[in-house]
Amino acid sequence: MLSDSTDRMRRQLAFLAEIDRLKLVLRRTPVGDGSRRENSAEHSWHLAVAALVMAEHADAEVDIERVLRMVVLHDLVEIDAGDTFAYDTAANVGRVEREILAAERIFGLLPGEQGGAMRALWDEFEAGETATARFAIALDRLQPLLVNDLAGGGSWREHGVSRAQVLARMRPIERGIPALWPLVLEIVERNCERGHILVEAS
Amino acid sequence: MLSDSTDRMRRQLAFLAEIDRLKLVLRRTPVGDGSRRENSAEHSWHLAVAALVMAEHADAEVDIERVLRMVVLHDLVEIDAGDTFAYDTAANVGRVEREILAAERIFGLLPGEQGGAMRALWDEFEAGETATARFAIALDRLQPLLVNDLAGGGSWREHGVSRAQVLARMRPIERGIPALWPLVLEIVERNCERGHILVEAS
Repeated sequence: MLSDSTDRMRRQLAFLAEIDRLKLVLRRTPVGDGSRRENSAEHSWHLAVAALVMAEHADAEVDIERVLRMVVLHDLVEIDAGDTFAYDTAANVGRVEREILAAERIFGLLPGEQGGAMRALWDEFEAGETATARFAIALDRLQPLLVNDLAGGGSWREHGVSRAQVLARMRPIERGIPALWPLVLEIVERNCERGHILVEAS
Repeated sequence: MLSDSTDRMRRQLAFLAEIDRLKLVLRRTPVGDGSRRENSAEHSWHLAVAALVMAEHADAEVDIERVLRMVVLHDLVEIDAGDTFAYDTAANVGRVEREILAAERIFGLLPGEQGGAMRALWDEFEAGETATARFAIALDRLQPLLVNDLAGGGSWREHGVSRAQVLARMRPIERGIPALWPLVLEIVERNCERGHILVEAS
């Protein structure tokens, strides 16, 4: 019994060592001062604090503790599957399949029922059907908006992203945190005026 | 009323923008592959996942949701006060005062009662008197042990840290997650044998 429990802790420590690699997965978004690209671990941390700050704007059915669990785990699959740039259609082909294989391997490092519970959180996030997942997804869209805005356009500017593309990408915020939508539009418009987001000819 | 609520959200977004700077605060510990120093934002994320994984080894009085909140907020004061190397006695002089001023400014960016609640979490962590805080502190000691071990000695090796110093620093793990202590000792001994931690003449 004692050795089963030690074996269990060894697997848990090995999992914590393995996920350190999320710090090496670079996103397209920069850190706020524009000095370097952001990684998926610090991005996940930023979402967790955003969950705490924005909790009061969530629907009553949103379970904030579950949001916290979800956002700190939601990008672990990128350790194997890499970060896929949201605005790159070609790169998104096969993303789901790559991420499912990654989820099997990474959550499979943990003792069975513990890995299964984490996998269920990731599945719920990906499906985006519960109020809790929709809130978490809204945060996952809000955070890059904030860092791109801070960094003078960030990945929008670098990759020539258009207003229509940004608005389509941000739309889950309107659904998950409706109170925040007017401020999101304000940030998008400001970045259009500054030439950080491409404005299509009308 | 509507404009009060917009003003409140503006303050919340400004806080989320400000805390982006935690990604620029470097710790002495490396990331696991040794390629660079770890920052306090990704460290905080690592603690949050560690809280989920290790929750089953916590005392019954530990509130895991509160631990999650605590660990994602616990280093925000470093935005102003910087990270202080645990083994540097001189640098630790005045640390508490610097961090209190930082807490006042940073949590003060949020609407009053919201900033107050976060400040209370930070105070609880710093005081280390509740079972919840002791568990969070244990994670904050465990995480650098794991990355230093992964990176072939990391900050222990770089700064010539001794076995007695490491054991003293890790002691809160024995108190906060007693089940884990034998494995902590095993990791310390392995790093002593490899010459990554200095072994004093006996």
